Amino acid sequence: MLESLPTPCLLVEADRMQNNLDTMASHLDQHEVALRPHLKTCKNIEIARSMLDPRSGGATVSTLAEADYFFEHGIKDLLYAVGIAPGKLSGVADRIAKGMQLTLVLDHPATARAVANAAEQFDCPFRLLLEIDCDGMRAGFKPDSDGLLEAAGILANAGCKVAGVMVHAGGSYLCRDPDGIRDMAARERASAVLAAERLRAAGHELEMVSIGSTPTALLGDNFEGITEVRAGVHVFQDLVMAGLGVCRTDDIALSVLCEVIGHRPHAGQLVVDAGWMALSRDRGRAPAGPDLGYGLVRDLNNGDLGELIVQGANQEHGLIGHRSGQPVDFKRFPIGTRVRILPNHACATAGQHAGYWLLKDHNREPEYLERCAGW
Amino acid sequence: MLESLPTPCLLVEADRMQNNLDTMASHLDQHEVALRPHLKTCKNIEIARSMLDPRSGGATVSTLAEADYFFEHGIKDLLYAVGIAPGKLSGVADRIAKGMQLTLVLDHPATARAVANAAEQFDCPFRLLLEIDCDGMRAGFKPDSDGLLEAAGILANAGCKVAGVMVHAGGSYLCRDPDGIRDMAARERASAVLAAERLRAAGHELEMVSIGSTPTALLGDNFEGITEVRAGVHVFQDLVMAGLGVCRTDDIALSVLCEVIGHRPHAGQLVVDAGWMALSRDRGRAPAGPDLGYGLVRDLNNGDLGELIVQGANQEHGLIGHRSGQPVDFKRFPIGTRVRILPNHACATAGQHAGYWLLKDHNREPEYLERCAGW
Repeated sequence: MLESLPTPCLLVEADRMQNNLDTMASHLDQHEVALRPHLKTCKNIEIARSMLDPRSGGATVSTLAEADYFFEHGIKDLLYAVGIAPGKLSGVADRIAKGMQLTLVLDHPATARAVANAAEQFDCPFRLLLEIDCDGMRAGFKPDSDGLLEAAGILANAGCKVAGVMVHAGGSYLCRDPDGIRDMAARERASAVLAAERLRAAGHELEMVSIGSTPTALLGDNFEGITEVRAGVHVFQDLVMAGLGVCRTDDIALSVLCEVIGHRPHAGQLVVDAGWMALSRDRGRAPAGPDLGYGLVRDLNNGDLGELIVQGANQEHGLIGHRSGQPVDFKRFPIGTRVRILPNHACATAGQHAGYWLLKDHNREPEYLERCAGW
Repeated sequence: MLESLPTPCLLVEADRMQNNLDTMASHLDQHEVALRPHLKTCKNIEIARSMLDPRSGGATVSTLAEADYFFEHGIKDLLYAVGIAPGKLSGVADRIAKGMQLTLVLDHPATARAVANAAEQFDCPFRLLLEIDCDGMRAGFKPDSDGLLEAAGILANAGCKVAGVMVHAGGSYLCRDPDGIRDMAARERASAVLAAERLRAAGHELEMVSIGSTPTALLGDNFEGITEVRAGVHVFQDLVMAGLGVCRTDDIALSVLCEVIGHRPHAGQLVVDAGWMALSRDRGRAPAGPDLGYGLVRDLNNGDLGELIVQGANQEHGLIGHRSGQPVDFKRFPIGTRVRILPNHACATAGQHAGYWLLKDHNREPEYLERCAGW
């Protein structure tokens, strides 16, 4: 079947995906905490359904377009986990009026004032989590800040629901090893618990104490005081996660199928019909290392080819060579040979495609699954 | 109008775009050579029509999906400028049978044999350009190679049309200054002319001697022996082109509109709702420099804000700071402020969006233009 799919295209191995989901579910079951899967990686309803946790029922999204797509397909409880832009509040109010249980996040008293004003203007009691910063990497109130209580007060006074706190340890992606990730998981949890305690002491009844990233969700060993964990990349895994020790390379369920269109004798490289448009420009853990170029090459059946990587990428051309610099044996890869490329970053590579071919059984036709897109 | 568009979104300034097209047309007019615009940058029919040159009438595409889209909208003469994958020949034959005048490229005798076999199998006399390498950057026969004549012979014997040669000086993107680009343009032309002479001497009647990249098309000063020039980025221009001296920053017609969603006091940065999903992961001329992060920030009316750049990007978050490291004045950019981001690489940034808002006149509603996508 893989011989006749149009190239380049995105493949998902159903067995590996299910195994990745089972690994996450089993770890969180053991710690008796619910998963609110982040759907920004898969952006597909069939895959999303296999990720949902009945204990939470809800999901996380990174755009309002994802919220619309998943709501139309029956997922009502959605956390939009990017700080709300005031310009989006009118659209959010429309969605809530249609029955979407949409929870927003913010991290500044000024945003809280904008939300409070919009709550009055649109007669819509927005529901919010306050975002907490645990690693200085992106967004969030410091858990011990005055601004946190100020923002909560502004929201509550306007009739909005301060439903809880949210922390994302994005710094876990930069850790050097599993011990570093466990330390980061402890900081993520501690920040969430401290912020929640302060808000509760100020009289807010919190329902959600939400933390998560794929590394800290899979390696964290203490979820006390946490109501739910967010993760999304675990569904496919990728070379960044394998490099962190969060999964094995053979757990990666996503790959880009492509075809050899040329040989470069002077460079010892193959040319394939997958460039950065199909692979994304994401360079993974480079330059800190290891540098796997634009992805690791596998054969048509996902078999190991050593450290054959995509060393260069133009819009629709990929240049494949050995990481060692040794020339590729062209006789092994004649023009027309098909290979697969494992992605540095599953969210970025999948984001370049309108859908997947789901491989359930090598004797059956692959099933095509669409992805939602845009904002 | 820009206050109410959904963010993030892609904007095109019609005046700047027209000026960029006029600059290219005037330069090529002066040298009496036709343009075959590359439509991989715009991927939109209205913009494509404004790029077409009546002397050629044809266009260049980077995917068969682009070929289908533009053919459906009336452009029949299309050069698919990526080495043909044997697995795509069946689909190409179907398109030719429907009336598409599709020209393919290849750079290996083995590909020529695959094309010859498919010509017989599908009873389709494919039309081809032989790709020539002038800079060792990507693909192509060396102009003085035996393989070039061997491939041409295989094709001609199978009844296919060897229509000419194609060279792309991708190395021009790595030049340090306009003089380097002019040298590269000379090499691009010389390679094409030498390969064409050898093929003609071997009895092939060539119609097309095709060269081009935006830098070499705009700065080249000798097009003798060339029948057409390919370029695509010139329609929008970008920070890479401005860095090369091929355009001014104020010529860049493309930008991503986004909104401030947070302040990071410890880092002196703004957070906006445009991350790498809206900007692409393309890092432009970094690390060789200058490093403009994920793009240069302008105000809502495209006004200069100094060296304010996108220093970090997550999937849906951008972190904006001064290149100097000086903290951003938060009072000037309160939560909810809208700004624009000029792209490192127009093809990559546009590739992240399903369409554009075309700004023709600041007092009129922007017009939405769709883009085609996929393969």
